[in-house]
Amino acid sequence: MTMNRRFLLRCRPQGMIQPSDFELVDAPLPVLGPGEILIRNHYASLDPAIRGWLDDAPSYLPPIALGDAVRATTVGVVEASNASGFAPGQWVMGLNKIEHYSVASEGGFTSPIDPSILPSVTNYLSVIGAVGLTAYFGIEDVLQPKPGDTLLVSGAAGAVGSLVGQLGKLAGARVVGIAGGPAKCARLLNDYGFDAAIDYRGKDVDALSAAIGEACPNGIDLVFENVGGIGLDATLLHINEHARIALCGLISEYNSAPHGTRNLWQVIARMATIHGFLIKDYLHRFQEGGAAMAKLVGQGKLRFDEHIDEGIDNAFPAFLRLFEGSNDGKMILKLI
Amino acid sequence: MTMNRRFLLRCRPQGMIQPSDFELVDAPLPVLGPGEILIRNHYASLDPAIRGWLDDAPSYLPPIALGDAVRATTVGVVEASNASGFAPGQWVMGLNKIEHYSVASEGGFTSPIDPSILPSVTNYLSVIGAVGLTAYFGIEDVLQPKPGDTLLVSGAAGAVGSLVGQLGKLAGARVVGIAGGPAKCARLLNDYGFDAAIDYRGKDVDALSAAIGEACPNGIDLVFENVGGIGLDATLLHINEHARIALCGLISEYNSAPHGTRNLWQVIARMATIHGFLIKDYLHRFQEGGAAMAKLVGQGKLRFDEHIDEGIDNAFPAFLRLFEGSNDGKMILKLI
Repeated sequence: MTMNRRFLLRCRPQGMIQPSDFELVDAPLPVLGPGEILIRNHYASLDPAIRGWLDDAPSYLPPIALGDAVRATTVGVVEASNASGFAPGQWVMGLNKIEHYSVASEGGFTSPIDPSILPSVTNYLSVIGAVGLTAYFGIEDVLQPKPGDTLLVSGAAGAVGSLVGQLGKLAGARVVGIAGGPAKCARLLNDYGFDAAIDYRGKDVDALSAAIGEACPNGIDLVFENVGGIGLDATLLHINEHARIALCGLISEYNSAPHGTRNLWQVIARMATIHGFLIKDYLHRFQEGGAAMAKLVGQGKLRFDEHIDEGIDNAFPAFLRLFEGSNDGKMILKLI
Repeated sequence: MTMNRRFLLRCRPQGMIQPSDFELVDAPLPVLGPGEILIRNHYASLDPAIRGWLDDAPSYLPPIALGDAVRATTVGVVEASNASGFAPGQWVMGLNKIEHYSVASEGGFTSPIDPSILPSVTNYLSVIGAVGLTAYFGIEDVLQPKPGDTLLVSGAAGAVGSLVGQLGKLAGARVVGIAGGPAKCARLLNDYGFDAAIDYRGKDVDALSAAIGEACPNGIDLVFENVGGIGLDATLLHINEHARIALCGLISEYNSAPHGTRNLWQVIARMATIHGFLIKDYLHRFQEGGAAMAKLVGQGKLRFDEHIDEGIDNAFPAFLRLFEGSNDGKMILKLI
């Protein structure tokens, strides 16, 4: 009998996630109701945002229920379907769970995909997935860099940050990235074409501020913020008048009591704006964004990396990489 | 011989301002150069923003030099003039200093005013001064409330906050204010027409959040933030999708190590925006704003209060009131 291995949330993490917060179980295959689709998940996208869904706090999606499998975007193949528009064998992508088989509903977040348009079906979880579209709309809509602008990107070697930097360069901006460790900083310069790289490791807020000041002699016009914490505080000390800050993530704060942003007064003094954004706001423009990113990939203008760990039994260590910074590229879990 | 009594900055305050950070001295009257105007200051505006200028930190105006008189907006009368357009006896307003006599320059921030259009010349420092225009542009340009919006105002009994709340009501919003103590909360409801008032005193972030949740059952669409600290953190837990936050001040953080804003993740989750703003951005629209506020005053639609302390020798205790919250209305120092 085929079983469905599932990665369940057992306890709400207190601070850093622990193996004991989760459990792997084998459950019977779900039975489909009317309008439902059974998906054999091939890949799950591991994203920092999942950490927020583990908490019992008001957010843009309900908290993951204790005892339920951990929510994640997956790509997979329709195994059985009671829904029109979804036939067995069809590749689909959707907001499902970290489990071998998920049940999705007609009219939900699951949609068919064409695996032939990019080198790998995993690209739907990276360059033309939520990650790629976050970078695309963050640049195209929120920041709108002009030639000559200085754009500072935190988490710059990450899946979103590395694309943001490249899109910023394509728009003519001077792009500076913050990343952890010399290897990642070298990748910013050599692989992703950043103009300057700052290693945040071992630096306090003053040392970070000094490094940012040196790398951004004309101040910062645009910020793409993925990290928060003292890096954001150091950044705020260098923003120019009317700077725009795209607030995409605060990964340094997800697993611990936040440092707290202490230099918000600079947002007043510089008449800056902070734009919290989620790609949820751009559902109606996904086709535009996906097509634009696929075109840039086809033209060889975008470098993107995927870090694929194998097996649902490795879900925890793979997820943990995001908070240790030990992944090299978009973190994906191969399930089949 | 007429002397010029001046309120000088002696040391940069460490934390809360102390009397020893300042000194009163009598200096000879300044000698006018070409294009300069000698002003006999009648009133000085005491504003939280002055606290920022005392620090040696990058900001929108240079720090006040040690040994110089403390910068403030004043209204006064031209005593002598080497500048065209300024004749002795003319009332003027400008960014001057807390001193009996200031020297201003042609083409600077000093402009003639007409003391007859409002009940008191001090109104140029309150309802149609920086305070009134901050409220006006914060509502008119930054927040743009629509009927039915819930607007939360912190520092609501203060000079800016009380006007913001009234302008919000005139625009049809439901207006909730946060203030310190039962007397101020009663004024919000009785004098300024707020729909609900929250006393922040004695409340931690959880108690504040509970009070805000109760006062804003449909969440918060618009925030006019004057205070920061745990009040802002509690506020962020209740913002609706696409909330707009006008960041005008962070008075709770000016005299102490900031608490740090720990709930910025809500700005992402709610796709909210934070707009740092200064009236400096609206210089070209001052006439519009002043006329609009004067008209509302003339129509009896705006209540505004001024707290006038007398004598330059009281400059320190008068300034301190802003941080103790012991002023009832716009804080003004009478100099003559």
